[in-house]
Amino acid sequence: MPRLDGRKNNELRKVNIIRNYIHHAEGSVLIEFGNTRVICTASVDDKVPPFKKGTGEGWVTSEYSMLPRSTQTRNVRDISKLKKSGRSNEIQRLIGRSLRSVVDFRQLGERTIIIDCDVIQADGSTRTAAITGSFIALMDACSYLVDKKIITGIPITDFVAAVSVGLVNGQEMLDLCYEEDSNATVDMNVVMTDNGKLIEVQASGELAPFSRKELSSMLDLAEAGINNLIKIQKNTLLGGYK
Amino acid sequence: MPRLDGRKNNELRKVNIIRNYIHHAEGSVLIEFGNTRVICTASVDDKVPPFKKGTGEGWVTSEYSMLPRSTQTRNVRDISKLKKSGRSNEIQRLIGRSLRSVVDFRQLGERTIIIDCDVIQADGSTRTAAITGSFIALMDACSYLVDKKIITGIPITDFVAAVSVGLVNGQEMLDLCYEEDSNATVDMNVVMTDNGKLIEVQASGELAPFSRKELSSMLDLAEAGINNLIKIQKNTLLGGYK
Amino acid sequence: MPRLDGRKNNELRKVNIIRNYIHHAEGSVLIEFGNTRVICTASVDDKVPPFKKGTGEGWVTSEYSMLPRSTQTRNVRDISKLKKSGRSNEIQRLIGRSLRSVVDFRQLGERTIIIDCDVIQADGSTRTAAITGSFIALMDACSYLVDKKIITGIPITDFVAAVSVGLVNGQEMLDLCYEEDSNATVDMNVVMTDNGKLIEVQASGELAPFSRKELSSMLDLAEAGINNLIKIQKNTLLGGYK
Amino acid sequence: MPRLDGRKNNELRKVNIIRNYIHHAEGSVLIEFGNTRVICTASVDDKVPPFKKGTGEGWVTSEYSMLPRSTQTRNVRDISKLKKSGRSNEIQRLIGRSLRSVVDFRQLGERTIIIDCDVIQADGSTRTAAITGSFIALMDACSYLVDKKIITGIPITDFVAAVSVGLVNGQEMLDLCYEEDSNATVDMNVVMTDNGKLIEVQASGELAPFSRKELSSMLDLAEAGINNLIKIQKNTLLGGYK
Amino acid sequence: MPRLDGRKNNELRKVNIIRNYIHHAEGSVLIEFGNTRVICTASVDDKVPPFKKGTGEGWVTSEYSMLPRSTQTRNVRDISKLKKSGRSNEIQRLIGRSLRSVVDFRQLGERTIIIDCDVIQADGSTRTAAITGSFIALMDACSYLVDKKIITGIPITDFVAAVSVGLVNGQEMLDLCYEEDSNATVDMNVVMTDNGKLIEVQASGELAPFSRKELSSMLDLAEAGINNLIKIQKNTLLGGYK
Amino acid sequence: MPRLDGRKNNELRKVNIIRNYIHHAEGSVLIEFGNTRVICTASVDDKVPPFKKGTGEGWVTSEYSMLPRSTQTRNVRDISKLKKSGRSNEIQRLIGRSLRSVVDFRQLGERTIIIDCDVIQADGSTRTAAITGSFIALMDACSYLVDKKIITGIPITDFVAAVSVGLVNGQEMLDLCYEEDSNATVDMNVVMTDNGKLIEVQASGELAPFSRKELSSMLDLAEAGINNLIKIQKNTLLGGYK
Repeated sequence: MPRLDGRKNNELRKVNIIRNYIHHAEGSVLIEFGNTRVICTASVDDKVPPFKKGTGEGWVTSEYSMLPRSTQTRNVRDISKLKKSGRSNEIQRLIGRSLRSVVDFRQLGERTIIIDCDVIQADGSTRTAAITGSFIALMDACSYLVDKKIITGIPITDFVAAVSVGLVNGQEMLDLCYEEDSNATVDMNVVMTDNGKLIEVQASGELAPFSRKELSSMLDLAEAGINNLIKIQKNTLLGGYK
Repeated sequence: MPRLDGRKNNELRKVNIIRNYIHHAEGSVLIEFGNTRVICTASVDDKVPPFKKGTGEGWVTSEYSMLPRSTQTRNVRDISKLKKSGRSNEIQRLIGRSLRSVVDFRQLGERTIIIDCDVIQADGSTRTAAITGSFIALMDACSYLVDKKIITGIPITDFVAAVSVGLVNGQEMLDLCYEEDSNATVDMNVVMTDNGKLIEVQASGELAPFSRKELSSMLDLAEAGINNLIKIQKNTLLGGYK
Repeated sequence: MPRLDGRKNNELRKVNIIRNYIHHAEGSVLIEFGNTRVICTASVDDKVPPFKKGTGEGWVTSEYSMLPRSTQTRNVRDISKLKKSGRSNEIQRLIGRSLRSVVDFRQLGERTIIIDCDVIQADGSTRTAAITGSFIALMDACSYLVDKKIITGIPITDFVAAVSVGLVNGQEMLDLCYEEDSNATVDMNVVMTDNGKLIEVQASGELAPFSRKELSSMLDLAEAGINNLIKIQKNTLLGGYK
Repeated sequence: MPRLDGRKNNELRKVNIIRNYIHHAEGSVLIEFGNTRVICTASVDDKVPPFKKGTGEGWVTSEYSMLPRSTQTRNVRDISKLKKSGRSNEIQRLIGRSLRSVVDFRQLGERTIIIDCDVIQADGSTRTAAITGSFIALMDACSYLVDKKIITGIPITDFVAAVSVGLVNGQEMLDLCYEEDSNATVDMNVVMTDNGKLIEVQASGELAPFSRKELSSMLDLAEAGINNLIKIQKNTLLGGYK
Repeated sequence: MPRLDGRKNNELRKVNIIRNYIHHAEGSVLIEFGNTRVICTASVDDKVPPFKKGTGEGWVTSEYSMLPRSTQTRNVRDISKLKKSGRSNEIQRLIGRSLRSVVDFRQLGERTIIIDCDVIQADGSTRTAAITGSFIALMDACSYLVDKKIITGIPITDFVAAVSVGLVNGQEMLDLCYEEDSNATVDMNVVMTDNGKLIEVQASGELAPFSRKELSSMLDLAEAGINNLIKIQKNTLLGGYK
Repeated sequence: MPRLDGRKNNELRKVNIIRNYIHHAEGSVLIEFGNTRVICTASVDDKVPPFKKGTGEGWVTSEYSMLPRSTQTRNVRDISKLKKSGRSNEIQRLIGRSLRSVVDFRQLGERTIIIDCDVIQADGSTRTAAITGSFIALMDACSYLVDKKIITGIPITDFVAAVSVGLVNGQEMLDLCYEEDSNATVDMNVVMTDNGKLIEVQASGELAPFSRKELSSMLDLAEAGINNLIKIQKNTLLGGYK
């Protein structure tokens, strides 16, 4: 049985990445995973958090938010509730950890790169799109620093991309859209590097516990999907990074 | 002396409007005034504010915000400061008043249309772009309500558009970009209808007071600019509204 | 047809200004426009905002608030809602811009004068009363700095006053009280200097658009009203300032 | 040795009470204890807190705040810090308890009277001035309810007034001004009824512990002071309440 | 090489669970994983969130917090920063999902059980201790509902416990204490049921990516640890639940 | 007529103090007054508030909070309401003043001791338990500073303890439990030193005014109770302080 949009279970949605999407930012992309669209910007800040002061090392941090009407029904803005949503907190922490895992902070020097991920339109897998797109924005911000001779080399040790997988109607599926995600009994997000190493695995079976075997099959799906995403990232950067 | 980008003093920047930009919203546009880019969505809500309950009348309200890196240096998010910026408050009140001035609330019925204006990239005149784009989103949301037979006719009484004018280096100029705005001694925003009536005039001479004559010249410029913007709005809607 | 309180359309309400109303403040007044009563204080602070640090120049900023029962029905305090009201934000920005337009920041030196406008009783036109009264408080705070030999001359370049005008039942009226304001189709606030120059023009036709001709008539009314207010300001200051 | 302002140790400062100070409020006074000036308003609200719903009984609550420049150096507003100050919280709880102690909630019926105490100018003893003045505002709001035939009788069982006493330079003193309060080793606020009964005793020896004997002497002073304040309250109300 | 406290790599710290620790709560435990101590309470609330209203189904939600001095250096309270920490948000969402996965909401009926996890003393693995202890509190709250004949059976479908594992100095270790956690290159939290099914897997290699093989070894360790924890849970409940 | 738990009117509940309850803190106790249980920690911070900077003197401050389920019905957390409760504010100010009254700030030197009082289980008199327990935590934190040779002597000038008294069913009673407190017409908290001096007296007759004679009887009860509490404090510290 094919998926809602005719995809095969191991097939990504169409991925589109527009670089330099926001002129002001040192790095920025608009990334699309099907109808999911996220603006990712990378901003260079000369300051570092207190725990990095005087260490000669830099930092990468992330913020994630959704426009009010990126979703099917309008969300009240965080500022109207005076609370960052718990979900956004969870996601931006994931994005930050994922990107930091491939940054050489010593080479970056005492500065912070702030990654802003703002979801313009949500159709599932916004966090994995955000990670995959932010990596390009981060690369471009680093290239900017090299071009300006602020640092001597790109302080990125590996490619990073992320994908969702899930168990939907008893089948493992890759890159869930919103409707699939809503019907998934297991929902999983995987972040990996170019060399096939895992950075983050977050699997949740709130609706139905899952077996080690199912976990393993889903990881297989994710690995293949991430390999494809990293190819797309490389094509996108071609000419600007080798 | 020509302007920074070669425009004449009474010339608008290139205006671009993409309708149905966000699939989930009842009405949505991406509007560009040169490098200024704003996403405007119109969301229909079945509730009205307390002062409209039981009146049979609807309401239109607006929220305005900027993405952190829509500006040259990154802005801290409102939620991180736990305060909506005073400037955003001022602007969203202006947008709300401007749109409400052409809505027939009785025909709209007891529902609220929430206009969200999120600035993706800022290069001056974000509030006038927001008003001009929101009008299209509002029209489309009303068409949606008519198509769904929720209301019987488009409850909009007139077209509305807005433009900035200013006194820069002693010359009156139309549709200021960021750098012109920064150097303006007088900064003015004008909202008008199709039939040449004024809805809002906000002129501020914080850096240098201005004369009645200068006010009049700037209003002339604004009027011509708004007429052009309303032509663009009509072309955009052609086929979808008469 | 005379107005509610028997005034002519071009007539101000009784204006009363009590200087040195709060002993602790460097400048302070209680100003009354009819039943509208506002306490305006000017406080000198040795610090300046970051963008003025090291420039040798000062700054003027303003905060506006209403006591909970200054209005017909009790308002919940900002702190109980954890939000400064949008309207107060809009008004305090207007007050700040209006006063800054006549301050020589170089002569003031690197210090901030904070203007607090607290409405004790509201009967329309609180923002114009606040601007008109704050100017006196600002002058007195500057005189204090001169008397203490902290600065060498009054760093104020011109008088500033403000007045409301509106279109009520088809007639242009000056200095609207609350009930007139509630029935106005056009509501306008004008800030001018002693020499007849405009500082701020804010006209809003939320209930009915207005013509250039109506705008002009209302500006005429405002100009005459402001001239009278500046006479009252000069009488108030007589002996203390020339 | 006389006090700073020449008063005797058992002497109140000049007390002044202006009734109906704010036209909109059901009850309101401006009360002065010397240079301490507080606006107290009593607002009638048709709702009651959840724990009173359906009981047929009413409630009295209080809020206390200071204008930013009521003090020698300007205070940042609560809303700018997003926190009600701990001191204001403590004081408004005291005011609420003190007034509730003399209200017959059954006779008041299911409605709330909200007491707002806003300090215009502070020179010590603001909380005792607030309690003493609020009692008059409360009485006037109750008279309003009786006049409107909403309730059948004044639901107040006794007069209430409050005064500060303290141990300054080894001497017990009544009604401390700011400078005396700053030098007091013991600071005490007493709330009493007309018939000499205690409602609140709050004595604090943060700078030096005190003896039972000193407590007793201070209570004597307070009792005499409160008797005088209640006389002043009665004169103020004369004709309006017996 | 033995661990800091002499444990073997696959050994839990001493686990201690005191039931009915807080008299007021429907269910409550003090749970200790070594020096980590968490108070878990389960409170029954008659209301459900909006999305459950009228469904006949209940809900389980969780809040997690740390006492200011549960950590080596004192943490500023959330309320002083006006922000729930991102980490606490992430953890309480994990606790909620984990417990909900074994609750039969239909049998629970339209009521919410609120799980509060307050860390008294932190020495690593607070979230896994919180989940393991909260399960007992949840069971006891359900027993309370059965005893009171509010529901007819315990609406819990399986046991749930959680444990941390990590890669420390190249070795996989179970149940990390704070110092081990600080030195771990991979940090993982696993939630499982009695029958060996996975509920949550969260593995993070911020400091060094990890292989599928390492993931698998860590899951083996976790599974054995959770089996032991569930035995301890069963012993704790013995007599009160079968 | 005996009390609910069989105590005599002048009898304390069983008092239990566990020192060094939280390993991380410089001083910490779990104190129990019957079923009331409070964790008190004393944390040493190298900074002082602005008004102490450069004076060579230290400071002591306090924060008080209740766990959500320390009470009969669950309390919403402060952070969920974004407001510190007024009651908590009042109590933590009382605790701070009480402890500061016996600290020699010069001997303490420029550092702050932060006292955190977190109520684990509430059954009346939480604030007096908090003061009595915090004194021990404060002593232990000072001993820590002496042991580490950071200061040369314990900068505490006297013992401090606190107790509640009240008028319940016409009888004066010592150390009220929750149910007694709920029925008390007068509620009083007294803080005293070892040598019988008063530090704080807070008596409140919200439900019924009280006489000087009743105040005096209650103070007698309190004095005897505090003498007993200080004996318990001394036994607790025996060996660690003389």
